[in-house]
Amino acid sequence: MRILVLGGDGYLGWPTALHLSAHGHEVAVADNFARRHYDDELGVESLVPIEPLRARIAAWESLTGSSIGCYVGDLCDPVFTYAMIRSFRPDAIVHFAEQRAAPYSMIDRSHALYTQSNNVLGTLTLLYAIAEIDPRIHLVKLGTMGAYGTPNIDIEEGWLDIEHNGRTDRVLFPKRPGSFYHLSKVHDSHNIEFACRIWDLRATDLNQGVVYGQATPETLLDDRLATRFDYDSVFGTVLNRFVIEAVIGHPLTVYGSGGQVRGLIDIRDTVACVRLAIENPAAAGEYRVFNQMTESMSVSEIASVVAAAYPGAVSIENLANPRVEAPEHYYKVTHTALIDLGLEPHLLSETLIESLFSISKRYANRVRVEALRPTVDWRKPAPES
Amino acid sequence: MRILVLGGDGYLGWPTALHLSAHGHEVAVADNFARRHYDDELGVESLVPIEPLRARIAAWESLTGSSIGCYVGDLCDPVFTYAMIRSFRPDAIVHFAEQRAAPYSMIDRSHALYTQSNNVLGTLTLLYAIAEIDPRIHLVKLGTMGAYGTPNIDIEEGWLDIEHNGRTDRVLFPKRPGSFYHLSKVHDSHNIEFACRIWDLRATDLNQGVVYGQATPETLLDDRLATRFDYDSVFGTVLNRFVIEAVIGHPLTVYGSGGQVRGLIDIRDTVACVRLAIENPAAAGEYRVFNQMTESMSVSEIASVVAAAYPGAVSIENLANPRVEAPEHYYKVTHTALIDLGLEPHLLSETLIESLFSISKRYANRVRVEALRPTVDWRKPAPES
Repeated sequence: MRILVLGGDGYLGWPTALHLSAHGHEVAVADNFARRHYDDELGVESLVPIEPLRARIAAWESLTGSSIGCYVGDLCDPVFTYAMIRSFRPDAIVHFAEQRAAPYSMIDRSHALYTQSNNVLGTLTLLYAIAEIDPRIHLVKLGTMGAYGTPNIDIEEGWLDIEHNGRTDRVLFPKRPGSFYHLSKVHDSHNIEFACRIWDLRATDLNQGVVYGQATPETLLDDRLATRFDYDSVFGTVLNRFVIEAVIGHPLTVYGSGGQVRGLIDIRDTVACVRLAIENPAAAGEYRVFNQMTESMSVSEIASVVAAAYPGAVSIENLANPRVEAPEHYYKVTHTALIDLGLEPHLLSETLIESLFSISKRYANRVRVEALRPTVDWRKPAPES
Repeated sequence: MRILVLGGDGYLGWPTALHLSAHGHEVAVADNFARRHYDDELGVESLVPIEPLRARIAAWESLTGSSIGCYVGDLCDPVFTYAMIRSFRPDAIVHFAEQRAAPYSMIDRSHALYTQSNNVLGTLTLLYAIAEIDPRIHLVKLGTMGAYGTPNIDIEEGWLDIEHNGRTDRVLFPKRPGSFYHLSKVHDSHNIEFACRIWDLRATDLNQGVVYGQATPETLLDDRLATRFDYDSVFGTVLNRFVIEAVIGHPLTVYGSGGQVRGLIDIRDTVACVRLAIENPAAAGEYRVFNQMTESMSVSEIASVVAAAYPGAVSIENLANPRVEAPEHYYKVTHTALIDLGLEPHLLSETLIESLFSISKRYANRVRVEALRPTVDWRKPAPES
């Protein structure tokens, strides 16, 4: 199939592009390098050095003989987006091209506005492009488990069969997300569902858990194929950040009591899930939602897993939680749809996270320790200069 | 109380400002005249001539001795919005300042993008301004009954007590709206609920039905105080449009079979509802939702009411429905919260709509007949030039 990976220069977009290419698909990536710009803005870098996008693509071609197309531009620019789709004519579009960090969206007004504008309007532009150019294109959109919040009922896969006053309906699962970033994903989902309803588009919304890991079989072929590995308090996801903290002898920074539960997924499962969704597309007019996670764990438990696996002393520091979230809550998630499509999960309990320690050790000298501490306060927007 | 009415030059914003002023409140209005610009773009005008905003305000002051403040600018401009709130220091902000027509949002990509950008980002800017300047300000935000769509269960006021797999929760009522405009209101509601949760803001979300009528006791004081009256297929709401069609001898343009049901409200009740919400504010941290409608009626029934009341021959023409919506559906709405606060509804069955016929007759020569026919197709975005 011909597959366009939007955000193909990012943490997950890049390994997904390689995985799809390795599985025989015709792949192109698109990016506006917003993610590299956030590094410049925040004064941090990926722990693992990454090559320029075109160097990565050239390395992949030289190693495997498979070429990957490359488009540079902004999804919010309709001239760029329409021209790209008209030129590549994809069967499926994988959409990673959104600002993806909750703390980044909560820095201040302008970061919140940027996040919702970039994410919601970029996706809306894409929906129109698909509707106008080729409604058969299957949109595979990355969402987040965080969009659900932590309801006191079981979380189903996007839809909920409901009974109320003796009548029944099937409704979009009610959401109560915890940041302006998570809200942007909720807005996207509503827009996409509507586009499927009125234009007969086909879409898969992947509500992804927190991803951990840094390597896939494809990225391991060569250092030049490495994907980014973020450890800072803004873009570093929880397990990855704990690994780096353990390696440099910094206490694991647990927010609050650590009772808050996260859905988790191994990076190798992420790329497999996206491929499974593409190879088993939604029907015309269908808006389907998969909960793309393989297990749940509290933040404290994640810290314990990292501490137990690390061959050395590890301390844990409970910081005041900068987020507004329930310290303890019910959390039970249905996530069978991707298993039914053939996913074979890598569970944390059975995975050697030693490889994460070794990559962290190799680049430990690149860590800026001050970037580990949370600086964004959910309760108080930063004053703008 | 000091009350800032955003969108105070519009169909409902203006009569609301007068009503609040007449009830002894200290009022200021803000507008960027986007609504007058849409007229220019679409080649139509309010059936009833309207004065420039500053002339309206001067007329009100000369008639009543009450002054109304005036701010001209765009809510999406944070410099304007912050300065306005710092200068006026309102106790409550009534927010009508959104693009309000479903068909306008469905014209093409750029109108959809404009609607979601203007509405969602404007409201988000406002939320930040309130949080940073004075979180005690009560936000009274206009939403729409259309945000709910037409679920097969009873529609509650914003929140729903739910039971699922033996567990219970109170969730935001699941929405399934029918246009990119309606979606913008759903996005707003999610953002506002979150702002109340993290910043302890106080907000009332008024999910309003289709408004009919053109006069309130205040606007009737003088021709210069008239509010706009739209009849075109883009901005004209259903009952108002039918009245004008009857008067000029045009068939009433019913979309589809007319079985689709709308919540309705008299313009005099709209202004009373807004005042009741302001005078009985939400608590700090509270996000509450009122269904601001007084009765439900199918589009066919509305046409019959107009036909029966009009002293002359009226024909009905069933056009292909340009919208994607269920032709027949369940529709039962809870709308008791505003009654509990003291609203005394004007029901359509008991209201003399003769006054609407007479104002329409007076200005019938201003009707552009071709503007009555729907031109926006939900199923197909217009090609952009």
